[in-house]
Amino acid sequence: MANPVLPSSGVLSPLGLDAVRPAPGFWGDRIALNRDVTIAHCLEWEEREGWIGNFRGRLPRKGREFSDSETYKLLEAMAWADHPALPELAETVARAQEGDGYLNTRWTGNRYSDFEWGHELYCYGHLIQAGVARLRMHGEDRLTEVVRRAADHICRRFMDTSETCGHPVVEMALVELYRATGTERYLEMARRFVERRGLPALGDIPFGRAYFQDDVPVRQARSLRGHAVRALYLAGGVVDVAVETGDVELLKAVEAQWERAVARRTHLTGGMGSRHSDESYGEDYELPPDRAYSETCAGIGSIMLAHRLLLATGDARYADLAERTLYNVLATGVALDGRTFFYANPLRVRVPAEPLDGVNHAAEGGLRSPWFDVSCCPHNIARTLASLAAYVATSDAGGVQIHHFTPGEITHGPLALRVETGYPWSGGVSVRVLSGGSGQISLRVPAWAKGARLSYGPATPASSDISHMSGVREVEPGYAVVEGDWQPGDEIRLELPMAPRWTFPDRRVDALRGSVAVERGPLVYCAESVADEPPLADVAARVSSPPTDHLPDQPTDHLTGHLADSPAGAPAAVPAPEAAGAAEAGAPVPVAGAPAAPTDPVADTPSGSAGPEGDPVVEVEVAVVLGAPDANGWPYGPEPDSVEGVDTVLRLVPYHRWGNRGPATMRVWLPVAE
Amino acid sequence: MANPVLPSSGVLSPLGLDAVRPAPGFWGDRIALNRDVTIAHCLEWEEREGWIGNFRGRLPRKGREFSDSETYKLLEAMAWADHPALPELAETVARAQEGDGYLNTRWTGNRYSDFEWGHELYCYGHLIQAGVARLRMHGEDRLTEVVRRAADHICRRFMDTSETCGHPVVEMALVELYRATGTERYLEMARRFVERRGLPALGDIPFGRAYFQDDVPVRQARSLRGHAVRALYLAGGVVDVAVETGDVELLKAVEAQWERAVARRTHLTGGMGSRHSDESYGEDYELPPDRAYSETCAGIGSIMLAHRLLLATGDARYADLAERTLYNVLATGVALDGRTFFYANPLRVRVPAEPLDGVNHAAEGGLRSPWFDVSCCPHNIARTLASLAAYVATSDAGGVQIHHFTPGEITHGPLALRVETGYPWSGGVSVRVLSGGSGQISLRVPAWAKGARLSYGPATPASSDISHMSGVREVEPGYAVVEGDWQPGDEIRLELPMAPRWTFPDRRVDALRGSVAVERGPLVYCAESVADEPPLADVAARVSSPPTDHLPDQPTDHLTGHLADSPAGAPAAVPAPEAAGAAEAGAPVPVAGAPAAPTDPVADTPSGSAGPEGDPVVEVEVAVVLGAPDANGWPYGPEPDSVEGVDTVLRLVPYHRWGNRGPATMRVWLPVAE
Repeated sequence: MANPVLPSSGVLSPLGLDAVRPAPGFWGDRIALNRDVTIAHCLEWEEREGWIGNFRGRLPRKGREFSDSETYKLLEAMAWADHPALPELAETVARAQEGDGYLNTRWTGNRYSDFEWGHELYCYGHLIQAGVARLRMHGEDRLTEVVRRAADHICRRFMDTSETCGHPVVEMALVELYRATGTERYLEMARRFVERRGLPALGDIPFGRAYFQDDVPVRQARSLRGHAVRALYLAGGVVDVAVETGDVELLKAVEAQWERAVARRTHLTGGMGSRHSDESYGEDYELPPDRAYSETCAGIGSIMLAHRLLLATGDARYADLAERTLYNVLATGVALDGRTFFYANPLRVRVPAEPLDGVNHAAEGGLRSPWFDVSCCPHNIARTLASLAAYVATSDAGGVQIHHFTPGEITHGPLALRVETGYPWSGGVSVRVLSGGSGQISLRVPAWAKGARLSYGPATPASSDISHMSGVREVEPGYAVVEGDWQPGDEIRLELPMAPRWTFPDRRVDALRGSVAVERGPLVYCAESVADEPPLADVAARVSSPPTDHLPDQPTDHLTGHLADSPAGAPAAVPAPEAAGAAEAGAPVPVAGAPAAPTDPVADTPSGSAGPEGDPVVEVEVAVVLGAPDANGWPYGPEPDSVEGVDTVLRLVPYHRWGNRGPATMRVWLPVAE
Repeated sequence: MANPVLPSSGVLSPLGLDAVRPAPGFWGDRIALNRDVTIAHCLEWEEREGWIGNFRGRLPRKGREFSDSETYKLLEAMAWADHPALPELAETVARAQEGDGYLNTRWTGNRYSDFEWGHELYCYGHLIQAGVARLRMHGEDRLTEVVRRAADHICRRFMDTSETCGHPVVEMALVELYRATGTERYLEMARRFVERRGLPALGDIPFGRAYFQDDVPVRQARSLRGHAVRALYLAGGVVDVAVETGDVELLKAVEAQWERAVARRTHLTGGMGSRHSDESYGEDYELPPDRAYSETCAGIGSIMLAHRLLLATGDARYADLAERTLYNVLATGVALDGRTFFYANPLRVRVPAEPLDGVNHAAEGGLRSPWFDVSCCPHNIARTLASLAAYVATSDAGGVQIHHFTPGEITHGPLALRVETGYPWSGGVSVRVLSGGSGQISLRVPAWAKGARLSYGPATPASSDISHMSGVREVEPGYAVVEGDWQPGDEIRLELPMAPRWTFPDRRVDALRGSVAVERGPLVYCAESVADEPPLADVAARVSSPPTDHLPDQPTDHLTGHLADSPAGAPAAVPAPEAAGAAEAGAPVPVAGAPAAPTDPVADTPSGSAGPEGDPVVEVEVAVVLGAPDANGWPYGPEPDSVEGVDTVLRLVPYHRWGNRGPATMRVWLPVAE
């Protein structure tokens, strides 16, 4: 089965890329854009920057010490996408492998001399993940041969040592290679890497050993901590080891760490990581919107972890967080053109970014960049979107579960289903039976979807015989389960409440006190302004009026004008689009006009403006008071500051769409006026 | 005159170390501790770490590329303190100087190959400041000879280039050397360094050119920006150049930048710098308490800048900010033992620090450390405390101005004054005439001191003839000026209102919304807990009850017990005290008992507990509600979170005293309960 994660046990089994075929829609469009544009973009830049040249032995070596891993992530993306350039790139990599299986363009001649920062095992991890993808999509070839030799080298070199890598990922990779090949030493090697971590296994570093989760053994840790990507990759590998070895205690430990991190160290977007200095979580409730680091890779790591926990436990909360992170971190991390990327995903940007003409040397930035000195995020997006279909649905002995709603077809045994939906813009999801089978069909009802309704029955009365179970009922968050002997034409319709809603923070999150955000369905919204700072700095929300969907025929005022009428700013310079159909960069979002693309089969939503990729984007309006900027002066005084100003309306856009129209200021959290 | 800053023009002229002689008291005690303990501590650690050995040519070279500057700052401290070890250390330095005046232990043989990060001119700047100190305290010697040769080398090498240093300080230093020697090329060199910056003069770096203030010419900049220490050192040098060249436009530019930075980029403590990643200001109103960087050196840089602006303009607001920063950053940066130091000074610490046994490899930490890989802060504290008397008072044609209240004697011409005060614990300041003279005596009335009263007259009716001006009057913030023909025994008494007060943030400071702090006199207060996190995380202030001074005979409850009864934690390990009279590290602050030391001549304050150094520390109590910790769960929801819990009293300590009793959590800003 074509799947990045394929546990041999667990509550749910994932359906792979061979069983889930997305059609155009929110994710289908992005998967296609990734296949047609982003993969080629990464390949072109890797060549341009000399990172692929490193495998050819070109000197001086280019890129950071872990740049090999980017090529491997690209190979993984290519493997999932059946990309025709894979064999040539795999051959280039293969030629750099040494006789004993060692493979690293940075450390050859000086092997394993820096476990804290060398990233050698990290690079192998990504290489192995690429090999697993190739094995499952294609079968054995030159790449999988390289991967097996590397994995065998790792086992010989590290099975009986106490060493490990400063950056986890090899754990996940080795377990998956075990799953794909049945070779048990790969699982044992992964198990040992997990168990020796925190004894400690690494040297001390200025950031402290928690940075790479070597402060305490994983069984003793109470929360996800330190460098967020490292923490999440490690936790994913720990789940994999726990599942394959039947280690319930180990699984419970990660579940508890996840629960605590989600309750105390997670941004509203699902993003994780608060500190720029060491890309780390920070402490409990340290969640500043300004400097939310929320690295795109950490979001992907969180999706990977949540997916593994979902498969192991069947608990909907894991799919809920994965969905939140998919729509608000992964979808934010790549522009509508598929060629520019966010590394950090803050929830507040106070000053419009300066457009960059080329490589972004910093991880931060208020505009998406075509490339970074550390380009982990573009490659991580590429491999994740290329395999995203595998996250959509699962099966168990009882039937099929649909966790993420995206148009397309799902097959499981004799059962074939067609999903139609305008989600996340509208809340209707239709699941139609194309070919029959018996058993349960379960649809996830997100935690926010109080009052969701499920209806089911034959599409036309004469076509089926499931009238014994027809009807409409309200369904609770979790999974709505319908069991039947399905006939072609039968339909399940889930209606999720899509009214925009206010969301308030826990009072312990100091940085958000007195603020409110807007969510609608799975989307976090934000105020964006391509004009000056003051409008967003001095705005406060009137929470007594509920937020409303924006109807494009309403008049605009000066504030919403910032969103609707401002000139399209120049985004970061990018190479000219090559692939046909690439969205035009920098085009303003039309504020009126009919949606271009998929018709909503369960129309329950006003049609919003159409985005460049055809999404019928629904914007949201909120009542605000716009305060006048104060005079300068010492900003601390004997009386509480109050907001006084003009009442007006502010239009919010989905957070994932911000920064597509040029330099802008942005805020997710609005001060509460009352 | 023995003075670190001695402008040839300006509204006010500083009185130097020869004219201001501090007696025991808040600052007098710290000046003595610095002289007796801290300087020796720095000397010992510099030897231990090999940084002085670098000047002896020992290999491999030790320390960071700018470690020479630490030795120079230590030499400056020694010069101000007339320390007997200076000549030997100066000789060690002198022997490393090359024939043409070049002097740098890191870059010899590879001179001026990295202006962005090399710090060569930065090191010279500190060397020159040491030489100026020596010249003014002692006269010409081996050190001043080295300094002149270095300065001449700089002028030859850089007068006609477009180069400058990634870290400013040489500008201030060269102007001061000009002031001390009259050699005009030093001033011209400084002027050119100032004018060429931002054209730009340096290469691009990942942090962006604003990091080292090379983004725009200094005349065009609107605010202090980028790396805070760099920004403040540069601004100080710009003021010096502007004053000496009569460049009013340049002075006005810095004044405007200062005003904007103070209004938008300054923590309540006076600390500057919000970001850890690049030690920078961050954007306007980006002032998170958790991660307030507020580097001790930035506080010192701000004091240096404010002092220069005060001398140039006579405006009390500069002295106000200097005072705030002295009491809440400088005094915080060094422990009561004189041997451990803070690098960063956050306003919120959520998790008690792990005690460190030796060098702190990171800039952050919730406990003061004896040394850092980058030990700028200990040395900066040493040189600043060694010259602190020079910041206390100034003169102009009309008379004498007292800006900072510390017991001691001040002389100016025939006039000799004795200042007695328990400030900052009590608000009474007595200025008694020891030997007569005519003219004005001005006392600064801080901006917070609404309702201050001034009384003046002969100490005993028969002793003097200033009855024509005797009386009591209320004085406004600014300067209270009394003019007279002063006779021995005459006295001026200033009474500043010392009731603790609530302080609220500007609503644009997102990170502080809905919070309140407590100030008392010039001191910012904080809640400190050596126990677990929950008490401070779940506490909220009832602002309807004013904060009150803590009377030690009041009963304690469980909350104040955290402050009073907790076991003394172990502070960071430090070398055993050598100097007699060093305060005992780690001793708990007694909560009752009579103050040991200086009696308050204008007793208007309840006596608080006595600190290890004899300060009669006044604590403050506030009414709070202590909420019960919530269960874990997704921290964002549809209803505003409210604080419900037990009403109790929380005792606050001066911010500068926090972290002296071992690992603790701390917060300056408290959520508002109502």
